[in-house]
Amino acid sequence: MNEFDFIKKIRRLTQERAAAPDLVRGIGDDAAVVKSFLGSDVVVSTDLLVEDVDFRRDTTYANLLGHKTLAVSLSDIAAMGARPRWALLSVGVPNDVWESEFLERFYAGFFQLARRYSVGLIGGDVSRTPDKIVIDSIVIGECLSEHEIYRSGAEPGDQIFVTGFLGDASAGLRLIERGARLHSLAKRQSASSAEQEDETPIEHLLLRQLQPEPRVGWGLFLGDQQLATAMIDISDGLSSDLNHLCTESNVGALINAASIPIDPVVRELSGRRALDPLMLALHGGEDFELLFTVKPENAGKLPNRVDGVQVTRIGEITDVASGVNIVEGFRSWILEPAGWEHFKG
Amino acid sequence: MNEFDFIKKIRRLTQERAAAPDLVRGIGDDAAVVKSFLGSDVVVSTDLLVEDVDFRRDTTYANLLGHKTLAVSLSDIAAMGARPRWALLSVGVPNDVWESEFLERFYAGFFQLARRYSVGLIGGDVSRTPDKIVIDSIVIGECLSEHEIYRSGAEPGDQIFVTGFLGDASAGLRLIERGARLHSLAKRQSASSAEQEDETPIEHLLLRQLQPEPRVGWGLFLGDQQLATAMIDISDGLSSDLNHLCTESNVGALINAASIPIDPVVRELSGRRALDPLMLALHGGEDFELLFTVKPENAGKLPNRVDGVQVTRIGEITDVASGVNIVEGFRSWILEPAGWEHFKG
Repeated sequence: MNEFDFIKKIRRLTQERAAAPDLVRGIGDDAAVVKSFLGSDVVVSTDLLVEDVDFRRDTTYANLLGHKTLAVSLSDIAAMGARPRWALLSVGVPNDVWESEFLERFYAGFFQLARRYSVGLIGGDVSRTPDKIVIDSIVIGECLSEHEIYRSGAEPGDQIFVTGFLGDASAGLRLIERGARLHSLAKRQSASSAEQEDETPIEHLLLRQLQPEPRVGWGLFLGDQQLATAMIDISDGLSSDLNHLCTESNVGALINAASIPIDPVVRELSGRRALDPLMLALHGGEDFELLFTVKPENAGKLPNRVDGVQVTRIGEITDVASGVNIVEGFRSWILEPAGWEHFKG
Repeated sequence: MNEFDFIKKIRRLTQERAAAPDLVRGIGDDAAVVKSFLGSDVVVSTDLLVEDVDFRRDTTYANLLGHKTLAVSLSDIAAMGARPRWALLSVGVPNDVWESEFLERFYAGFFQLARRYSVGLIGGDVSRTPDKIVIDSIVIGECLSEHEIYRSGAEPGDQIFVTGFLGDASAGLRLIERGARLHSLAKRQSASSAEQEDETPIEHLLLRQLQPEPRVGWGLFLGDQQLATAMIDISDGLSSDLNHLCTESNVGALINAASIPIDPVVRELSGRRALDPLMLALHGGEDFELLFTVKPENAGKLPNRVDGVQVTRIGEITDVASGVNIVEGFRSWILEPAGWEHFKG
């Protein structure tokens, strides 16, 4: 198969599988065309994933990588309080990958998640690389004008919340680094996440790393209700992403360590493996939970759960002079950004 | 410098250098936000460029690569008859490139072209790679609803036109493969293309390969006037791209070899280097000229030049059963797609 046949095949799949409302023209022309969003703003996110930096071919499966590729971009759109609508995917692969079933499985994982949120794949590019896989994921969303939630809107006194649990994904990564693998590939490929009830605690953490669930429902709720003053997704780690939010908002923060939601599974496995669950939760990246701030008078309006995902109050915004701090019992310290960086300074 | 400092720097540059009308929020949040385009369609193109496949670090300059990265995507938008508005850029580089001045020069070349067409850089991603540079260029354009020009609108009897000259870029590539290099880097970095009057014929062809000019003006004119029934940009080569257009339109074509616009410089240098200028023009890629079709009654409405770039009638659309053919004197043959493919079938 040459790349033109491949593009034809993907085009057919997008027509069959991914409903794309308001799509004027998708894959197969020089560019994709979508209807303008009347009264809306257009929100665009891009994420570059590079083999042996962001993922390893021998520790994940192609379908999980396809899922994660879309998930990281959906998480960005959720963090704006916007609705994801369209996706574009640029993929570069070496010849041996081209000749394998990798791309077929990769796109299957991608489409499975895309269908769940009615996101249409409308374009992209495919290229050869000398030896590593590279993927660029672009997602376009929409948002009612002036309903976006930026990193920059937090004010002193606002309450700080996070969705879900923190530290799961980095606990999963540590397990992978120590040799843990997902064994049940066949099950993974056929089962939807709702059916994955019999996964072991270790599988659960591996999947939190390899198949993260973007908090699309929470993003839509917060954008719709205009309850959050600022929001960011936790991709680099709580310490780094909270510092990003505080820098953009020109505020400080005080986090209560005891209130950080840590998965009981992480606590249990950490004890046995000499890991510190709080450090995983503070500095571990790729949880793709949402971190957001809410005015005190609105905190009571938050539901306990959206799409089954809980939310937890972990602290409060302070003035910028106080800096970003964390309290644990009688100790308190400055919470330096210590999450993921591609390039050290 | 770590990546966050780098992103801050690029963000500052976008604020200083690239005017971005209707930008709500650019670099520095989870996603970019732009105003919706009332009464318009949104047109999106992506192009993945991989080191040692699409370019070589030792045969180009970083600023020219920055220019070309944006140029290939502007060419896609032009081929839709649309106006380019916004760009996003995902760049992955190995550590040694990160520590060099490569990215600074790369962005300088990118911004120089972006400014010319008032295209704002609104987002992207930066990542480390193990050893090769990878770039994904995304450009968002706009177009009045139903004014897009697709590959699929050509009908038998339509006249076939191309802008500019064909074969220059591949002649330039052959020269590079045989050791030719641009020596006047200092001049390249400071001069705008209007000032490049003293370039030698060889430099001219190297620049057509390394610093292609997208036909944005022609794209806008044809979209605005609704004169073209179908359009594609010549990135893979005339033979391949004409076949793409004919496949999408379900038509055939008859090309007159004698009318294909070949640069006198290419004719002259080809003779001395045992190259066939017609083969370069037919199968050489990366000219980024526009190939479009016009109803016979409208052919007279085309201007001779737009932005100083000529247009030439090279043939006629036929019915699909006739196939895609070329006539040269008394000979005629089927014009098989023989342009660039990343993966052979």
